[in-house]
Amino acid sequence: MTTSAALDAVLARIDAGLEESLDRLFALLRIRSISTDPAYAEECRRAADWLAAELEALGFSAAARPTPGHPVVLAHGPEQDGPHVLFYAHYDVQPVDPLHLWHTDPFEPVVQERDGRRIIVARGASDDKGQMLTFIEACRAWKAATGALPVRVSLLLEGEEESGGKNLPPFMREHAEELKADIALVCDTDMWDRRTPSITTMLRGLVADEVEITAADKDLHSGMFGNAARNPNQLLAEIIASLRAPDGSVTLPGFYDDVAEITPELKAQWAGLGFDEKRFLGDVGLSLPAGEQGRSVLEQLWARPTCEINGMSGGYTGDGFKTVIPSKASAKISFRLVSGQDPQKIRAAFRAHVESMLPPDCTVRFTPHGGSPAIAVPADGEFLRRALRGLSDEWGRPAVITGSGGSIPVVGDFKSILGLDTLLIGFAQVDDQIHSPNEKYDLDSFHRGIRSWARVLAALAE
Amino acid sequence: MTTSAALDAVLARIDAGLEESLDRLFALLRIRSISTDPAYAEECRRAADWLAAELEALGFSAAARPTPGHPVVLAHGPEQDGPHVLFYAHYDVQPVDPLHLWHTDPFEPVVQERDGRRIIVARGASDDKGQMLTFIEACRAWKAATGALPVRVSLLLEGEEESGGKNLPPFMREHAEELKADIALVCDTDMWDRRTPSITTMLRGLVADEVEITAADKDLHSGMFGNAARNPNQLLAEIIASLRAPDGSVTLPGFYDDVAEITPELKAQWAGLGFDEKRFLGDVGLSLPAGEQGRSVLEQLWARPTCEINGMSGGYTGDGFKTVIPSKASAKISFRLVSGQDPQKIRAAFRAHVESMLPPDCTVRFTPHGGSPAIAVPADGEFLRRALRGLSDEWGRPAVITGSGGSIPVVGDFKSILGLDTLLIGFAQVDDQIHSPNEKYDLDSFHRGIRSWARVLAALAE
Repeated sequence: MTTSAALDAVLARIDAGLEESLDRLFALLRIRSISTDPAYAEECRRAADWLAAELEALGFSAAARPTPGHPVVLAHGPEQDGPHVLFYAHYDVQPVDPLHLWHTDPFEPVVQERDGRRIIVARGASDDKGQMLTFIEACRAWKAATGALPVRVSLLLEGEEESGGKNLPPFMREHAEELKADIALVCDTDMWDRRTPSITTMLRGLVADEVEITAADKDLHSGMFGNAARNPNQLLAEIIASLRAPDGSVTLPGFYDDVAEITPELKAQWAGLGFDEKRFLGDVGLSLPAGEQGRSVLEQLWARPTCEINGMSGGYTGDGFKTVIPSKASAKISFRLVSGQDPQKIRAAFRAHVESMLPPDCTVRFTPHGGSPAIAVPADGEFLRRALRGLSDEWGRPAVITGSGGSIPVVGDFKSILGLDTLLIGFAQVDDQIHSPNEKYDLDSFHRGIRSWARVLAALAE
Repeated sequence: MTTSAALDAVLARIDAGLEESLDRLFALLRIRSISTDPAYAEECRRAADWLAAELEALGFSAAARPTPGHPVVLAHGPEQDGPHVLFYAHYDVQPVDPLHLWHTDPFEPVVQERDGRRIIVARGASDDKGQMLTFIEACRAWKAATGALPVRVSLLLEGEEESGGKNLPPFMREHAEELKADIALVCDTDMWDRRTPSITTMLRGLVADEVEITAADKDLHSGMFGNAARNPNQLLAEIIASLRAPDGSVTLPGFYDDVAEITPELKAQWAGLGFDEKRFLGDVGLSLPAGEQGRSVLEQLWARPTCEINGMSGGYTGDGFKTVIPSKASAKISFRLVSGQDPQKIRAAFRAHVESMLPPDCTVRFTPHGGSPAIAVPADGEFLRRALRGLSDEWGRPAVITGSGGSIPVVGDFKSILGLDTLLIGFAQVDDQIHSPNEKYDLDSFHRGIRSWARVLAALAE
């Protein structure tokens, strides 16, 4: 069988086996692997065991390896000629609250029709279980159709991507020898649009902190104490408000010191992508870019850092009303960083700023939730060129090179710990509602994602 | 029996029956009558029925009357000579969260020793079940010792004071004829200090609003949308921060327009009370007055309006971290008003201010939670003079006239609906932690509160 004929057989096999691929995805989606909530630790282990068993059945030497947190699934295909790829994805998912906004059970996947597209609805359908299985199902089709994979494949499937991922870097360091490869492949990103595949080469970093302000040492009655006693809700709001200037920029001293302006060439390339700002915001019910004035939405998302208040709470938040001045108020605050910014420096500047706003009779407690620098992947390598070709062949149009506003800390770890460059190839769509109620993955993303990986593996083998 | 001998017999009866009085208080404290939470509606009815039965047994014609919300207990003693007093208190209590900060079960009252004082610990021990029973137990002692009360007494015991109390004013209007009396007595306020009784003649009013801001129509991933999409947490924080100037004053346009400065005489009288600002704040772990700079804490509490953020929430507030930009953020905000301020005007100014800060692609929803003007009780009436004498006799030192930072809307309703002036007489202490975990009532407040009412009823009859 020639390589081309082999690929044709693999693609035919993928098309014929789609229903069974979907059944396997559904089985994985039913596992409630919410990594941030300790109540779901057992479910995370079940997801890891399920994956290890599937990979073992595909001829990999696979196991769910223990960590101080959730297990890491590690799998190795047999040695063979050609490049050795290390595929990464994560089996953990985000919490599902607010649950009442889901139209279906987040852990009972269904295929629905929406706007003429068939979609898979479930927590993790897109981020990242659906994406992860595109690769595994491509491997399965290669094995079934030809008896082997076109390149040597190892897989590293994590269970703490959504909850800080503190245990993966030490795991990588400990198993650095075993994780040796030629290139890393990560499937956790978007397509440019529903018809245009892309490889992401710029990723924002992330620094996250939890801030808890304490004023009085007990909750107070707002009639008996209101005006005279410091209200930590008010103080926290003042601190949060002070983080953004009216022009949308972040006010922390030194925040933009290490941020480079993008080159005119890159600006021109992005302008040529035909990105529709109105539609991007309109799709989520907004119309005005909220970030730095005078910069395009793509630039705000891909090339400019941000500060986001991911959670905020203090006082009575139940039904009705309670005239309380709470003792404490807290917020979960994160910074998305761009290339050049030092996470430690940003965290220190943030904490110093908060402390500078505290009256002497109030205190603050910080809890860090991980930090990682932004990533810029070399845009001129041979593997990148081959992967772009594989994607372009599948989708019938040139694959594009893009940035991403999100953070995928593992890409930095691959580089710093294992010396590996990464190709970020994913099939998610901007309207997948990842991290939100009613998360979905286009059936087309799943099906053609599998086909895409089949082609990319073939292209990497050439 | 002379009046003086009768009073002595009543006081002796109170002392001898204290344990039984305490048993009855405990029985009432065990009822979980949290009015703001619909889950406790049945408990509120139980509290009302318990009170009606107790009063009926004391010779009152008593019943728990239905309202669209929780019942109102109405009780009438037999007609007789002398003034007719209408006693008011409330049987509902605040929610108990955060429950983990309670050292004992909030609904399993206990007597403990703290700092050399014996205290009753339970939700409602002070606010307002303990205070309410001081009056009822005084009536019981008069009946037991002399067979009758010294004045005609009616009681109006409410179950919605802690949750907006929307149903009481219509109830009063509907039963205005039945509620006719010469003076209202309310037991829901503090003593000046542990040895000095007081009658409160100034009460702040209250306007409360719930504010819900909506930005995007769904929760968003902060990587994919952060910077470009409006974060409602940030926006809400900016709105809240804008409500206070750096000098501690409230910034709403027109907020102080109708606020009169207190007279030099009153200022001097308050200065003479020997109020210890450092200790007042120090008792709750604070040291710096947070309100308008240059005004004393007493003035900030009694004579100046305030704006308090009683609750605030948005985004992910559970364990761990979630990099979400929420669709919505909300706050429960209240204003304490002083004499002259119009609640409707303040509410309108607040809402206009919030709306003025909204970007065009965000929306706001307001939910009102009651509003009432401040109250100034005439400080020169005959009933006030007699009540002050009764209190002074019990405590062996002159009772003082004070203001209060809290709101007791029913006092305004007594005046506007029933034409009644009110004497605010209470035995709570500033460290009772009402509305907070570990609420307590001094056993001394309970015991001598009962004795005080016995004397006040005698004084009113003279």
